[in-house]
Amino acid sequence: MRKIVIGAAQMGPNQKADSRETIVARMLALLEEAAGAGCTMVVYPELALTTFFPRWYMEDQAEVDCWFETEMPNAATQPLFDRARELRVAISFGYAELTPDGHHFNTQILTDRDGNIVAKYRKVHLPGHSEYDNERAFQHLEKRYFEPGDLGFPVWRTQDAVVGMLICNDRRWPESYRVMGLQGVELVILGYNTPSVNSQNSAEGEDKRLYHSELSMTAGAYQNATWVVGVAKAGDEDGHPLMGGSIIVDPNGYVVARAKTNGDELLVHECDMDLSVFGKETIFDFARHRRIEHYGLITSQTGVVRKV
Amino acid sequence: MRKIVIGAAQMGPNQKADSRETIVARMLALLEEAAGAGCTMVVYPELALTTFFPRWYMEDQAEVDCWFETEMPNAATQPLFDRARELRVAISFGYAELTPDGHHFNTQILTDRDGNIVAKYRKVHLPGHSEYDNERAFQHLEKRYFEPGDLGFPVWRTQDAVVGMLICNDRRWPESYRVMGLQGVELVILGYNTPSVNSQNSAEGEDKRLYHSELSMTAGAYQNATWVVGVAKAGDEDGHPLMGGSIIVDPNGYVVARAKTNGDELLVHECDMDLSVFGKETIFDFARHRRIEHYGLITSQTGVVRKV
Repeated sequence: MRKIVIGAAQMGPNQKADSRETIVARMLALLEEAAGAGCTMVVYPELALTTFFPRWYMEDQAEVDCWFETEMPNAATQPLFDRARELRVAISFGYAELTPDGHHFNTQILTDRDGNIVAKYRKVHLPGHSEYDNERAFQHLEKRYFEPGDLGFPVWRTQDAVVGMLICNDRRWPESYRVMGLQGVELVILGYNTPSVNSQNSAEGEDKRLYHSELSMTAGAYQNATWVVGVAKAGDEDGHPLMGGSIIVDPNGYVVARAKTNGDELLVHECDMDLSVFGKETIFDFARHRRIEHYGLITSQTGVVRKV
Repeated sequence: MRKIVIGAAQMGPNQKADSRETIVARMLALLEEAAGAGCTMVVYPELALTTFFPRWYMEDQAEVDCWFETEMPNAATQPLFDRARELRVAISFGYAELTPDGHHFNTQILTDRDGNIVAKYRKVHLPGHSEYDNERAFQHLEKRYFEPGDLGFPVWRTQDAVVGMLICNDRRWPESYRVMGLQGVELVILGYNTPSVNSQNSAEGEDKRLYHSELSMTAGAYQNATWVVGVAKAGDEDGHPLMGGSIIVDPNGYVVARAKTNGDELLVHECDMDLSVFGKETIFDFARHRRIEHYGLITSQTGVVRKV
């Protein structure tokens, strides 16, 4: 058995006016709780250090850049890294990354148990739009503020497991999980900020959106025989509700832990990486069963082409 | 609205000793019921005309070939085609196909409302194994008796909808749905014969297998914004139980009709093809959101390659 006790550290809302220091203090409290519960890895949500700023339309790039981090760790997050090292707990969280050469990404990092960043992922599937959209109930400007990730879907070995990361909308795309599955992924950790209402369909509320989120993660887990840990930032951010629904999913696609609130809340589960072996060796033994000669459109064609 | 009233014609077990004529008589009864309910399309399961013979190990090819059809329609199925034409109901069912040049496929056909075969699909993802396996509680010799389908995942326009087909194990592979999704599929019809117990893990019983079946179909529906109609052959075939669980899934991934028995049972639902439009134009607008530059492994690599 290769067990990792994982803490899924759901976070409540971050208001626009909240300082990063205030937010990191909440992350530290979750870290202490996780260490007390025996966790060796804690996963926080997407854009953990700020509000979900892509809901706000901005034209001044300097204003936009205030939501980004130019280095990691930095002054605000150093206490989190320091305490994680002391507690020997690996941490993973999302933030807006501004690179030295001026690129903007929606990024997630993972450390080892000594507080060293050992893995970085940049969100590939940016939802939403890039210009102000009058048709929407609220804005979702990820395509305006971020570039699509340029690192693909890598995996890393840490804590004796093959680990990959996704961010938010990536979890709805089976391609995301499959590219990692083809590299033997055993644990996918991801964070999300998902509005409780569809900006383009006010009738689509939280129940439906929670269902779609869970459906995507459970299917990705089952079809690649991997653990999936999905962690929300939830609750009301300056009048804009985000759904919760953080879950830990086993390699059979079963939810083994589920958040009950829309606030700061820690889920803990002892995840045995060896549970992924049976699926990978039988029904999802890719080498025996996949037929790539018939999958060509998946990589040759981006959008729908209707021929009938 | 583009509505098709679809009948999912789950079938109870076919015993080895049952003649095709006896079985077709049951299919005719389901057809009459469907026509009475206003259906214009009826979907029967995989290998509808016979027992699930791949559970039996055979070495004599002449014995194997007795389970195959060399033409379609043929004498046994002509009454079904004739009555379907009279009732103006399109039919789709699975059977073992032996081609004039000696190839063996696990095949499904679809007719128009005039009884003409307008579409043929050959199962791509064959599960199981090709040689007798002492380790299993029972045999699953699809890889012995069939070749993988050679037609890919085409779609056809019929009854003003874009329709594709899958067979059984194909439904567990997100690639199957995606290749059709990239062609604009609005309705996926599929049949299955799924043992109630995992031959390689006796602890994995019907509840778990029903969950995995439904999870795969609901995810495929949601992630491609398509209807999915999954139809079982169920019940005890010569001592070997097959699970039921036939369902009709809408393009939001919700089950709108579900079989209650393991016998001959008709599900009917009026399926509006236009329900697929919202998903295809928003969150799953592939042209805007897919990032094929990061999907390369899906088509370049069949099995897992571990680098970490």
